[in-house]
Amino acid sequence: VSAVETAAALIIGTEILTGKVADANLRALACACREIGLRLERAVTILDERPVIAAEVRELASRHDLVVTSGGVGPTHDDLTIDGVADAFEVDVTTSPEIESMLRGYYKERITEGHLLMARVPRGARLVVTSEMPWPTVVMKNVWILPGVPQLFALKMAVLKSELAGRRAFVSLSVFCHLDEGNLKPFLDRVVAEHPAILVGSYPQWDEPRYRTKVTFDGTDAEAVERARRAFAASLPDGALASVGV
Amino acid sequence: VSAVETAAALIIGTEILTGKVADANLRALACACREIGLRLERAVTILDERPVIAAEVRELASRHDLVVTSGGVGPTHDDLTIDGVADAFEVDVTTSPEIESMLRGYYKERITEGHLLMARVPRGARLVVTSEMPWPTVVMKNVWILPGVPQLFALKMAVLKSELAGRRAFVSLSVFCHLDEGNLKPFLDRVVAEHPAILVGSYPQWDEPRYRTKVTFDGTDAEAVERARRAFAASLPDGALASVGV
Repeated sequence: VSAVETAAALIIGTEILTGKVADANLRALACACREIGLRLERAVTILDERPVIAAEVRELASRHDLVVTSGGVGPTHDDLTIDGVADAFEVDVTTSPEIESMLRGYYKERITEGHLLMARVPRGARLVVTSEMPWPTVVMKNVWILPGVPQLFALKMAVLKSELAGRRAFVSLSVFCHLDEGNLKPFLDRVVAEHPAILVGSYPQWDEPRYRTKVTFDGTDAEAVERARRAFAASLPDGALASVGV
Repeated sequence: VSAVETAAALIIGTEILTGKVADANLRALACACREIGLRLERAVTILDERPVIAAEVRELASRHDLVVTSGGVGPTHDDLTIDGVADAFEVDVTTSPEIESMLRGYYKERITEGHLLMARVPRGARLVVTSEMPWPTVVMKNVWILPGVPQLFALKMAVLKSELAGRRAFVSLSVFCHLDEGNLKPFLDRVVAEHPAILVGSYPQWDEPRYRTKVTFDGTDAEAVERARRAFAASLPDGALASVGV
């Protein structure tokens, strides 16, 4: 188990900032981080611009234990993540013989110069290979360089989890209330004050007939999370509790 | 028409970074920015922590013409955006008489201290009211403070567009290709070199029987965008073009 404790996401995608598609990868990463007990502190979405990628990777990699990038790893002119990560660490880009060999095995006689560009890695990167995922994942120091295609990104979460497992997962429990946030506030303030180790969230719902506010209780100690939830539910006035859930 | 040209989004939401929900507001904002001709350069997602909000608002507001925040504007302990924005501009938080009066009119005798907290604004903020949206939108210098609830955030896009309209909207056209990115690369490189004013994007698709790669052409000059698309489509080898679209 490494000493990784905090994480950040870097979503590299002009298509997201121009509204062409909605990002699907942040939530997949957030859920994976919860499972392995990493605190995901920050996600930054940027345009496909090499100096911007480089500056952001440098900043995030210095402030967080783990950085996961999404997107910009294909062979075309707008795929600039490998170069940007290399710039961030002031190394050049080299060709990975292992990846080149896998590409040649896959494309055989149909291979082009364009396909071979997918073997480019920052010099000094390591390749993570697991039995379930023989295609290598490129990791440069504490930066995991993942594809933006949601189906591939989701597959890579299994690799991340198997490499970084071993911490205590976060536990989250909920209480659904008929009161609005303005009326709930004193009850929330009390549970927050009496259970300082538990992260309490309050989320008003719109167009939801079954409840007005969802209250969440998060932490790494499952019993303490359950105690906070039970205390909060018991503190509510008659008729205010809609249901409890995960 | 103001001189606003670039924009950034600040998504304030522990619920997003802990994987409880997927953000829906970035895409709504991205589409609104396209319509009014603003370049959305960056989106940052952070936890509900007042010093983090303050630091990020300060940074984004100094680097971009417009900043739009999402979330953290209710009355509970985890709603820290008003305080964070006030800290960023080194002002205190005050109560808006206009909003207090609207809250009292809405809740009448049922109003609580908690409800009245929703009238808090950074000192010096202005209230934007339109005929379609009488509930005020709080704007502090170049920072628009919007609710995180997606239905409300989407309604606020109409206010943003009516306040900031007048620039030339972006136009986006697409070409769908049967070639993968490795094979498309020389054709992409050519259109990028010959149409430098057009932003060309290339997006491989997964599990999509109709095409392998979507290529997009973006710009503010509709005729130039169409010229670049036509030139690219005409340059492709026989059988490579799947379809054209928006």
